[in-house]
Amino acid sequence: MHWDIETDVVVVGYGIAGACAAIEAAEAGVEVLVLERASGGGGASAMSSGIFYLGGGTPVQNLFGYDDTAEEMYKFLMASTEAEDPEAIKMFCDNSLEHFNWLEALGVPFERSEYKGKAVFLNTSECLFSTGNEKVWPYKLIARPAPRGHKVAGTGENAGAVAMKAILARSDALGVAARYDCQVQSVIRNEQGRVVGVQAREDGRTLRVGARRGVIMATGGFAMNSDMVLEHIPMMSETAMPLGIPSSDGSGIIMGQQIGAATAAMDGVIATASIYPPGQLIKGILVNKLGKRFVAEDSYHGRTASMVMEQPDQTAYLIVDAEIFAYPEITSAQHALVDGWETIEAMEIGLGLPAGSLQETLALYNEHANTRSDPYLFKAAEWLKPLDQGPYAAFDISFNKSIYLYMTLGGLETNAKAQVLDHAGYPIPGFYSAGACAVHIPRTGKSYASGMSLGPGSFFGRVAGREAAHAHMSDKICHA
Amino acid sequence: MHWDIETDVVVVGYGIAGACAAIEAAEAGVEVLVLERASGGGGASAMSSGIFYLGGGTPVQNLFGYDDTAEEMYKFLMASTEAEDPEAIKMFCDNSLEHFNWLEALGVPFERSEYKGKAVFLNTSECLFSTGNEKVWPYKLIARPAPRGHKVAGTGENAGAVAMKAILARSDALGVAARYDCQVQSVIRNEQGRVVGVQAREDGRTLRVGARRGVIMATGGFAMNSDMVLEHIPMMSETAMPLGIPSSDGSGIIMGQQIGAATAAMDGVIATASIYPPGQLIKGILVNKLGKRFVAEDSYHGRTASMVMEQPDQTAYLIVDAEIFAYPEITSAQHALVDGWETIEAMEIGLGLPAGSLQETLALYNEHANTRSDPYLFKAAEWLKPLDQGPYAAFDISFNKSIYLYMTLGGLETNAKAQVLDHAGYPIPGFYSAGACAVHIPRTGKSYASGMSLGPGSFFGRVAGREAAHAHMSDKICHA
Repeated sequence: MHWDIETDVVVVGYGIAGACAAIEAAEAGVEVLVLERASGGGGASAMSSGIFYLGGGTPVQNLFGYDDTAEEMYKFLMASTEAEDPEAIKMFCDNSLEHFNWLEALGVPFERSEYKGKAVFLNTSECLFSTGNEKVWPYKLIARPAPRGHKVAGTGENAGAVAMKAILARSDALGVAARYDCQVQSVIRNEQGRVVGVQAREDGRTLRVGARRGVIMATGGFAMNSDMVLEHIPMMSETAMPLGIPSSDGSGIIMGQQIGAATAAMDGVIATASIYPPGQLIKGILVNKLGKRFVAEDSYHGRTASMVMEQPDQTAYLIVDAEIFAYPEITSAQHALVDGWETIEAMEIGLGLPAGSLQETLALYNEHANTRSDPYLFKAAEWLKPLDQGPYAAFDISFNKSIYLYMTLGGLETNAKAQVLDHAGYPIPGFYSAGACAVHIPRTGKSYASGMSLGPGSFFGRVAGREAAHAHMSDKICHA
Repeated sequence: MHWDIETDVVVVGYGIAGACAAIEAAEAGVEVLVLERASGGGGASAMSSGIFYLGGGTPVQNLFGYDDTAEEMYKFLMASTEAEDPEAIKMFCDNSLEHFNWLEALGVPFERSEYKGKAVFLNTSECLFSTGNEKVWPYKLIARPAPRGHKVAGTGENAGAVAMKAILARSDALGVAARYDCQVQSVIRNEQGRVVGVQAREDGRTLRVGARRGVIMATGGFAMNSDMVLEHIPMMSETAMPLGIPSSDGSGIIMGQQIGAATAAMDGVIATASIYPPGQLIKGILVNKLGKRFVAEDSYHGRTASMVMEQPDQTAYLIVDAEIFAYPEITSAQHALVDGWETIEAMEIGLGLPAGSLQETLALYNEHANTRSDPYLFKAAEWLKPLDQGPYAAFDISFNKSIYLYMTLGGLETNAKAQVLDHAGYPIPGFYSAGACAVHIPRTGKSYASGMSLGPGSFFGRVAGREAAHAHMSDKICHA
């Protein structure tokens, strides 16, 4: 085969998964070339808020008194993701502490600080906070809850860039070569089915790059490809806003499919429910257009969003009383106030809910909230209070009428070694993937926790780099 | 509108849901007419093994020392079904004890006996046994496990007929009218959208039957309609065997759809994994064609079957050592012995598994089994033993190579009042459904427990009967 260039390992995409893959492969002593569409490294990771889901007793967890272990982390992820991939989950949890230390040694800064409230984004540089359903029933009964969101020391949306700066600097220092403005268009297999290189487009010319050991696909998700979203995510609303950069167009997934790779969870999506934050609002209740509650209001926003997406007409309201409405934080909400009403009867008419429905829901909720219990949905006691201080207000948090941001969770099917699998479940020799173009560990928004993109993305990027560095041209397809 | 006959409540189908609906409606003092396609009552319920999933402290549970409550039952069902319908689940659990007493008072016999082993069917008349994932991780951590399968006193497949005999006798005694060999073909709505009757075919003639209060659809599932199975259940294998009677053809679901009813979980299926029973076999391990374990082997058979269906090529093997193979019960297995081998290496070659894969899986499994732990999938300690007594045997439990029986779980979308909902989630006035043509509480095989067809089917049949008896022609559609 004719190659314009040859190297040991080709990495496609220079976001966090690709960069971590390049570092590990280079440290294993092989030659690495990164091909990146944009004019510089960083990808969507550099635009992110820099949260890593990590645990198992990190120094930050320990400092603030959380007794987390790899086992508890594993139990939580196994239960919340319905054990979709036990081996990958176990590998991620068992090595989570080592991965934290690796990132920190690389120069990714984590403050020794904690944010105790509920938040999606932190506009401060605090590190540790709760970003999942660990404290939500029933998970709190299965695994000892601990906060595992670790935010890089950088304010707000700047934190992702801080992380990528350190990671890219290390990759440079190790002598990793990179070509920018270079768009990979296809993956090349040899007659034995092994992946041996890629074809790219650069400066208007075709570039064929041979990979003696392996190709690592790390191109990101497909939220910005509206055709793919329309095809794979039927529940998506046109008003929901994709989170990504122009190259979050699924190209790596499509290139994998073209050579026979399987995909998984292509309908998976993590959306950020517009109710969240701030914290005190969840003392209100969420009802659908039938006036019924449908999710414990203290669920993490991704779970709440998934449940809203499943309601009739994807319609939902946040109902609060005057006491909750008085919290100052309410002004920052990303959802419209519909109106205020003196009575619940009036609110039912105002919102067009079935007569009596909301009155019944509230009577039941208040009766139990008075004893700090929620026998229907098990919302935690600290968020329970009767809603009985009129007037009452409703916010429209419908999926198609308030601001939901979303990312895609589906992608190339991979195993715990970051190998891409074919439709029979066998690894395609020489082909690896990590980051948002590979299927996420949480395959639905119900089981997502913030930091499950950068955390596993960087971790399995490293795994891919190591595995590819040790792969041999003689690796065969394992079909029986 | 012209009617050939008019009554208060029309029940379509005389299986357990329809019969229980008829009884409650008649007891509420209204006129009831049941229309049945077959030449007699009973339906698929009479062909079933007569297991009711009931709990909350039934006399049988109490007698054998199980401290079950409605709350524990609710917690289990909420967690295992992912809380798909909290209100219906709560209603079913809160009234489960009352429902047991109601059935017994009706003449449905339940022995005061218990079967402590693992079984799908009991060929004896014993009553209480475990029919779900209550003792399986993580559910055992969420709710106190209790057996909730209550089998009617009748041997094997005869138990369903014993139950139906008693139920139909009560319906007769209450003066419920029934027309047999009468096939309902469509549901009729008036201009306001209210369901007001049905059109049927009887003796080659069209029969229009008016329902002053309501129509209750209780026609059963669609396992015997291969077109519907092919359309809705892409994972189904042609070799799997549907459980049902000829009229399990989805006609009630289709008639509902034709007047705008929504359906739910149409891809849901409960299949009986061929590994199960008997009990001791689960001391072996289940692996897929990659040589990897994929489910805790002590899971209930429906969960195991669902997981097998999701494996590459739907292929799976049960691996045992000589010690397990020696159990006498192995002869009753519904799956073929592939072969026996002296070593695991030889078995890998014999089964065509990737070289080293099964050796790695077994080494890891045995290492932990020696300390009675299973940190990957949390199989309970009582079923853990190292598989180290050669020779070794493999049984093929692949979905398409062994005997899987299945029933469908999807159907008309209903609420806790057994009202059928439209696509916006609003009840269609005058229209009710229960039994297997309505969506089951467990929407997937992973969360199914045996007895979740007869149990909720009979319970929500009663709810439908009561609700329909109290419905009024002036009920309006509640659209906002």
